[in-house]
Amino acid sequence: MARLVPVTDAADPRLTDYVRLRDVNLRKSLEAEHGLFVAEGEKVIRRAIGAGHPVRSLLMARRWAEPLADVLDGLDAPVYLADDDVLEATTGFQVHRGALASLERLPLPSVDTLLTTARRVIVCEDIVDHTNIGAIFRCAAALGVDAAVLAPRCADPLYRRAVKVSMGAVFALPYARMADWRNGLGALRERGFELLALTPAADATPIDEVKAAERRALLLGSEGDGLSSRWLHEADHRVRIPMDGAALARGVDSLNVVAAAAIACYALTR
Amino acid sequence: MARLVPVTDAADPRLTDYVRLRDVNLRKSLEAEHGLFVAEGEKVIRRAIGAGHPVRSLLMARRWAEPLADVLDGLDAPVYLADDDVLEATTGFQVHRGALASLERLPLPSVDTLLTTARRVIVCEDIVDHTNIGAIFRCAAALGVDAAVLAPRCADPLYRRAVKVSMGAVFALPYARMADWRNGLGALRERGFELLALTPAADATPIDEVKAAERRALLLGSEGDGLSSRWLHEADHRVRIPMDGAALARGVDSLNVVAAAAIACYALTR
Ligand SMILES: C[S@@+](CC[C@H](N)C(=O)[O-])C[C@H]1O[C@@H](n2cnc3c(N)ncnc32)[C@H](O)[C@@H]1O
Ligand SMILES: C[S@@+](CC[C@H](N)C(=O)[O-])C[C@H]1O[C@@H](n2cnc3c(N)ncnc32)[C@H](O)[C@@H]1O
Repeated sequence: MARLVPVTDAADPRLTDYVRLRDVNLRKSLEAEHGLFVAEGEKVIRRAIGAGHPVRSLLMARRWAEPLADVLDGLDAPVYLADDDVLEATTGFQVHRGALASLERLPLPSVDTLLTTARRVIVCEDIVDHTNIGAIFRCAAALGVDAAVLAPRCADPLYRRAVKVSMGAVFALPYARMADWRNGLGALRERGFELLALTPAADATPIDEVKAAERRALLLGSEGDGLSSRWLHEADHRVRIPMDGAALARGVDSLNVVAAAAIACYALTR
Repeated sequence: MARLVPVTDAADPRLTDYVRLRDVNLRKSLEAEHGLFVAEGEKVIRRAIGAGHPVRSLLMARRWAEPLADVLDGLDAPVYLADDDVLEATTGFQVHRGALASLERLPLPSVDTLLTTARRVIVCEDIVDHTNIGAIFRCAAALGVDAAVLAPRCADPLYRRAVKVSMGAVFALPYARMADWRNGLGALRERGFELLALTPAADATPIDEVKAAERRALLLGSEGDGLSSRWLHEADHRVRIPMDGAALARGVDSLNVVAAAAIACYALTR
């Protein structure tokens, strides 16, 4: 049974795991240093614990102790109970979902280990936006993708906002991070993956004409520049989702990466 | 040629159109009262003007007068030039894209007028999130949807954040708002539209088995509850995008509405 510990001071050192949750730079170094991440909301906390992440502590408004009672029962970690204003002063925002957990990260598999059994994977180049990464994980998991490979500069799927937007799908979709961008696609090729680069370029192959190999990797690029020319060049095929001519003429010249990922996963996982 | 007017005081009444851009409630009443909306960033400002919205004024950091020179040339409105700190103090956030425009809204067509020529439309029920509305407009426009119909409670596509996320697609996709939620689908039916309700429900028809009529409407529901039972009931077909069984077992039980919209538009506009 977890210990319920009332806290009244936002500066209480026991709340350090939860400080300034919107300060991306601070969180990066804090979370790396302690090997932790933060999950928000009852559903997501349950999924994080279910995925085997050891709990360091919880922090919540009193009213959440009841709906989470069964979770707390099985825990050996402190549960800090605080008023909404203490929550807000600590985290730097209004915690609508009322409950936060600090959990331990687990060691990531190597790219090569990850690829041993996977058949359909997504590969994210420099997708730095946490909302996009979370949403991509959610649709990839829902549509039957087996794993994700992330370039070194890609956003952290365990950053609070990514976890939240993914609705916990970051715990359902195994992933690994490339050590090196330049040669990052080599491991995929060695494992026999066909590399399909998603790009809106007019001269790419329309996605409904692609006959993909059994083992296939969908490469997704960043919101601003799209895939690097290096990766476009290394891919086996450049693949496009056909867009409407009239929209193109009015300047709507690409899909956002989440929409593109959703369509590509749908079209290529069946 | 626009008048360039330096401003140094964030409380200058000439900047009223731009105050507290993140305060949704304040903006709602302010924009309704003056029939205005705000566009952010060079690209989006160009598209808003290109779509025929009269300009009330612009507000920007000095460095943006140069790249926007051709736009300013053709304008008859004041252009307020301010330092970054004045911009931030007025708007309430760091204006990364450096340039803002206040533009006039144009009268929306009635639902019936909108439907006269449209063949493929999306219908958004209570999608209250501005990011989701912006992203849905972007992918609907890019994928050849002709028009959007919004339920009364749906978020405003011309709210700054929606405009920005849509990359200006809110100016490319014509839309109208239902006066009344309860009987809102009647106008679609009268115009001969087949109503396809998108839902993750297991007993809905898989989307690749749907043979849609020439005139079709995709109904999309909100992030939390999905479509109302009333709309689900009124639809001609309930349609689902098949999801992965293993992901379902791990709690990934729906797509986010943007991903669902992207796949449905892709599958049903070809
Ligand atoms: C916003 S787009 C990038 C736009 C960039 N200007 C380009 O040309 O690639 C972000 C990513 O979404 C994917 N994407 C967007 N629209 C696409 C389309 N029509 N077909 C295939 N992929 C697309 C690509 O992977 C792209 O790198
Ligand atoms: C997050 S979902 C809503 C989930 C809600 N619990 C439900 O059961 O509808 C938001 C909207 O996206 C669409 N959607 C999400 N997943 C879908 C799927 N697998 N098939 C069809 N539509 C889906 C539906 O229109 C839904 O209303």
